[in-house]
Amino acid sequence: MEGVDSTQLRTLAAVVGEGSFDRAARLLHVTQSAVSQRIKALEATVGQVLVRRGRPCRITEAGRPLLRLASQLVLLESEALAEARGPLAGTRDGTRVAVAVNADSLATWFVDALARVPAELALRFDVRQDDQDHSAELLRDGSVLAAVTAQREAVQGCRVRRLGALRYRALATPELAGRWFADGLTAAALAVAPVLVFDRKDRVQHRFIRAVTGRDLYPPAHYLPSVPAFSEAVRRGLGWALIPEPLAGPDLAAGVCVDLDPTRHVDVPLYWQHWRLESTVLDALTAAVRAVAAETLH
Amino acid sequence: MEGVDSTQLRTLAAVVGEGSFDRAARLLHVTQSAVSQRIKALEATVGQVLVRRGRPCRITEAGRPLLRLASQLVLLESEALAEARGPLAGTRDGTRVAVAVNADSLATWFVDALARVPAELALRFDVRQDDQDHSAELLRDGSVLAAVTAQREAVQGCRVRRLGALRYRALATPELAGRWFADGLTAAALAVAPVLVFDRKDRVQHRFIRAVTGRDLYPPAHYLPSVPAFSEAVRRGLGWALIPEPLAGPDLAAGVCVDLDPTRHVDVPLYWQHWRLESTVLDALTAAVRAVAAETLH
Repeated sequence: MEGVDSTQLRTLAAVVGEGSFDRAARLLHVTQSAVSQRIKALEATVGQVLVRRGRPCRITEAGRPLLRLASQLVLLESEALAEARGPLAGTRDGTRVAVAVNADSLATWFVDALARVPAELALRFDVRQDDQDHSAELLRDGSVLAAVTAQREAVQGCRVRRLGALRYRALATPELAGRWFADGLTAAALAVAPVLVFDRKDRVQHRFIRAVTGRDLYPPAHYLPSVPAFSEAVRRGLGWALIPEPLAGPDLAAGVCVDLDPTRHVDVPLYWQHWRLESTVLDALTAAVRAVAAETLH
Repeated sequence: MEGVDSTQLRTLAAVVGEGSFDRAARLLHVTQSAVSQRIKALEATVGQVLVRRGRPCRITEAGRPLLRLASQLVLLESEALAEARGPLAGTRDGTRVAVAVNADSLATWFVDALARVPAELALRFDVRQDDQDHSAELLRDGSVLAAVTAQREAVQGCRVRRLGALRYRALATPELAGRWFADGLTAAALAVAPVLVFDRKDRVQHRFIRAVTGRDLYPPAHYLPSVPAFSEAVRRGLGWALIPEPLAGPDLAAGVCVDLDPTRHVDVPLYWQHWRLESTVLDALTAAVRAVAAETLH
């Protein structure tokens, strides 16, 4: 990248990572005007607008390749400095590690992985909760260095590893099951019994319906895009839904919910996509994620 | 609104509510081509593009006033039909009720309110998890008919009622408290102890720091935009954080976490903003929300 200044690149990563010029200034210990001048200079060099000013500031389409380069530079630099200074002398700000994780993984097993990363690496985790489509874009443009995603095709420049499958079970209260499914999971019942759906991209319930009946059915659906609200709504009888096994277990054991068909489940395979980069931080995070996934997933 | 066809308006509400032309077609029991023709006809009447085609389809700036009119029409029509046919003869699709709710309310008390709305109203809840800024916009453009929000100023055409305050307590593991706060919540300790922050808009931790020290401090922060992940990260010792009282209680009782200063808390006042509309559905939802809020909030 002839002619691109590394201080300017670091500043670009800080502005997009922190979301604003003043927070980037605080992180870099310079004035906001210095941040602004560096971004303008970098934009002049490249001949493109790189940052869409706003709340938060975002990278432009033209800026994506530079943001990725910048994010990688910041990570490698921070690691080299930490190594040179000794493991416990890291800056007090720590190394920022941005990852994208799907909602159900984040709510069930992923924090265990973060907690197992050695504390002496002094990392600051910047987690994005996201669906698979957006995760790929965040990896491509350098916004995150790794992602837990249902997408198996490697994003360009990334390595992908299978983590196992998150298993879902069809839960409902005994009352709801008795009212709608007294004759079992028939197509007639599944076409009308109220169901919960996480958001417009959640296909898990409809995959289950198709697996059971061989048909696409569209029962009345409540949308509840919050993992704890979703489970609570099943417990309160608002509808039936597919619940990740780690969350279903306690409700089944307590008898609050029943498994609508213990012989069936939906498995959603998950993958760990990360930059192809020699990095202590990335290696440590990958090891922790794989260890917890091996214990939790199928 | 002379010249605007109510079938076209209903179709506009369905396309934006469902997010796509084919789902709207399924809901309205017509072909996708009929949906497409109605939207084009409405756009021709108004002389503006109303729907940004995409995944999902969204309303354009020009379309906002029409969307709100359309959403209100659909609600009133659905109620009038239900009344004419008798309370239990509602269509099998039910009346769609879209509300925006902040993440912590959704994860703690809001599902209780949904569960208390009389089942015979046959509602389909379409919940958006959102921050206060976006909620105001969703109310204005008619995407939601009500919202739980920290914003006290009434959105145009809406009525606002105070619900009470969600109380937050500063939690950490005993180990983290012992390591960083052995001398109490000093400015020196709060400047360096790792903290958890929900997302870029979450100011609760920094409000607490300012209340305690009288200063703005910027300790190293992990971002974790998932309520269950956030609580779990506190329990695993990744940082300290402000936790809503309904979630903090069990962790304090079990001794997994300690209250860093039992004499202090942060109260976030919450408001119920809803359309000014004579509506059975809205009245029933408002009654349930106020009842649960009175039991849970301060």
